[in-house]
Amino acid sequence: MGSERFADLGVHHDRLQRAQEEMAREGVDVLVVGPSPDLRYLIGYAGHVSERMNLLVLPRTGDPAYVVPVLEAPRLAGLRELLGVHPWEETQTPAEVVAGVVGDVAGKTVAVGDQLWSVFLLALQEAMPDARWVSATPTLRPLRMVKDGREIELMREGARRTDDAWEEFIAAPLAGQTENEALDRLLALTHGRGLGPGFGSCGSGPNSASPHHETSDRVIQPGDAVVFDWGGTLEGYFSDVTRTIHVGEPSEEFRRVYDVVLRANQAALDAVAPGVPCEAIDEAARALIGEEGYGAAFIHRVGHGLGLDVHEEPYLVSGNATPLLAGMVFSDEPGIYLQGRFGVRVEDAVLCTDTGGERLNEATRELSIVG
Amino acid sequence: MGSERFADLGVHHDRLQRAQEEMAREGVDVLVVGPSPDLRYLIGYAGHVSERMNLLVLPRTGDPAYVVPVLEAPRLAGLRELLGVHPWEETQTPAEVVAGVVGDVAGKTVAVGDQLWSVFLLALQEAMPDARWVSATPTLRPLRMVKDGREIELMREGARRTDDAWEEFIAAPLAGQTENEALDRLLALTHGRGLGPGFGSCGSGPNSASPHHETSDRVIQPGDAVVFDWGGTLEGYFSDVTRTIHVGEPSEEFRRVYDVVLRANQAALDAVAPGVPCEAIDEAARALIGEEGYGAAFIHRVGHGLGLDVHEEPYLVSGNATPLLAGMVFSDEPGIYLQGRFGVRVEDAVLCTDTGGERLNEATRELSIVG
Repeated sequence: MGSERFADLGVHHDRLQRAQEEMAREGVDVLVVGPSPDLRYLIGYAGHVSERMNLLVLPRTGDPAYVVPVLEAPRLAGLRELLGVHPWEETQTPAEVVAGVVGDVAGKTVAVGDQLWSVFLLALQEAMPDARWVSATPTLRPLRMVKDGREIELMREGARRTDDAWEEFIAAPLAGQTENEALDRLLALTHGRGLGPGFGSCGSGPNSASPHHETSDRVIQPGDAVVFDWGGTLEGYFSDVTRTIHVGEPSEEFRRVYDVVLRANQAALDAVAPGVPCEAIDEAARALIGEEGYGAAFIHRVGHGLGLDVHEEPYLVSGNATPLLAGMVFSDEPGIYLQGRFGVRVEDAVLCTDTGGERLNEATRELSIVG
Repeated sequence: MGSERFADLGVHHDRLQRAQEEMAREGVDVLVVGPSPDLRYLIGYAGHVSERMNLLVLPRTGDPAYVVPVLEAPRLAGLRELLGVHPWEETQTPAEVVAGVVGDVAGKTVAVGDQLWSVFLLALQEAMPDARWVSATPTLRPLRMVKDGREIELMREGARRTDDAWEEFIAAPLAGQTENEALDRLLALTHGRGLGPGFGSCGSGPNSASPHHETSDRVIQPGDAVVFDWGGTLEGYFSDVTRTIHVGEPSEEFRRVYDVVLRANQAALDAVAPGVPCEAIDEAARALIGEEGYGAAFIHRVGHGLGLDVHEEPYLVSGNATPLLAGMVFSDEPGIYLQGRFGVRVEDAVLCTDTGGERLNEATRELSIVG
């Protein structure tokens, strides 16, 4: 009756305890987290993003508390073994309710979940002017970026269903459809396999050369390269794949570029192992593309962490020396973009295991030519 | 090629100028707004919410600037007549790029758009430690809460299509479907009429008594009250309607409660006129429900503003003395919730005109009994 069902309170109890250990290491006294993937990770409840303040308050020692609008409090009935619930009435000032729960913060450090809206942080800063405010990323990153067995199982299954949607998708012709129509069909096939809302983009012909192209009503034509980058969610965990296909017979140059990208994707995968710095994975793909003469056309990082957020730590980018650990999942997505002509990107989700990189995606990687 | 199409730069030029006038009134020196409905309102571009900082910087006098990841900069080509574009490279620190654009802020007041992620605000506060940081709500509220002719036209059309989906929806029986299945069908009918993603909930039987119930797999049965609260978007503007229907013949008590809610919805509408305080609309519905003996069962405010956000200013709630103005659009949604038994809510979007309230929704309001 309005209450969510929560399984595995034990898992979340452990995660909260590990967060407290990280807080101690980081010198953080209090952690506050609003509705977000961080919240879902910690307590199994994603919260309800709205103008009404919702906030997990975790002290470095002692029990967690959740400050919630009174209307939404019934949803948390199943969490009362995990945390104290503090409902606020519509006539109260929620930041003051939080300040009361937090207690004296003079000289203390409060870490704030990244996605909390600024309007709430500003209200908290006003209600607790003597605290020091920092980002919660250093505290939560070590937890979220290494996936446990259950998380890996969900991501493996999400990847499998996304791949399966792709195989059905490329069995039909594309020419004559708009980018929006083609993407809608791919997303419908993905959701039809039980995945929740994710994201998607389609760039065709010259649009394929713009990696952040907004999917348009351009009609896909013979001679086009077409890049699809999409994913869905399984219990909140994202899949994220990119495939580039060609409508009708491609040019020699397209074939060559496609082959370079495919080899760069493999080079990045081959570089994955525990202890290797994130930036070395980027460099592995970049060196190969550079040697082939397309260095200037690979205009983005090679990958990003994947999980409850579609982009999360670790980022595989020049300058990030963070060593890979077994259990990390991230994208491997080199691309070559020839402005005004075409682009190619091939992306898989990759799991770092004890012995190296393992692809979670196995959707057809060889060049597909469609009608 | 990756660039968005922007119409009506003149409209956005005017809105930016009016924002600067409000900044002067509020003593705000600089306004910063990230990807959000506020951004879409101001410049016609909603931005791309991600871990990469995107920020409109509007000084109280002078020209607006947009700080954007270099990869996303091509999307803004169509906005260069409206604002300066400042791309940042993946190896730069974007908060420092923003600080450079803003210039000296010692002793100045910077207003921050509500939905900007805290991780960005914390980075800005670190890069500009001498500024005073406040919420942008007082600056932007006067603009966003009064809709212009084009906005009203979009909201009227969005409401019409949502109503139309409802009429098709209630022509079919409900018993035997789960709440999720029924809601999916209603949303598909809504999207089938060209509306973009919005939101939705369905509560049946005892679940209907929980206004923030999470839609479940409960099977809808004869004897159930069923509350649907949903909407879609048209060019970013939300529709938002609630209807309560009954599966099979209702009890006398249900009929009575339904009638009270319907009259409370009408009483709130009748109270709408320019100059009337927001809280008086809430009070009109509350007084009627109280007189009928259900005062304790009307457990939320009567309404909220509606526009590019599904909940925005003005809030029709006790304590809000803001006077209504012609052009405001808000929900009128009284409800009565009898715990463990049933609930009834009837919601329309209402426009305040020069002469009174005008409903945008006309979906069947009399009690519908379905199979």
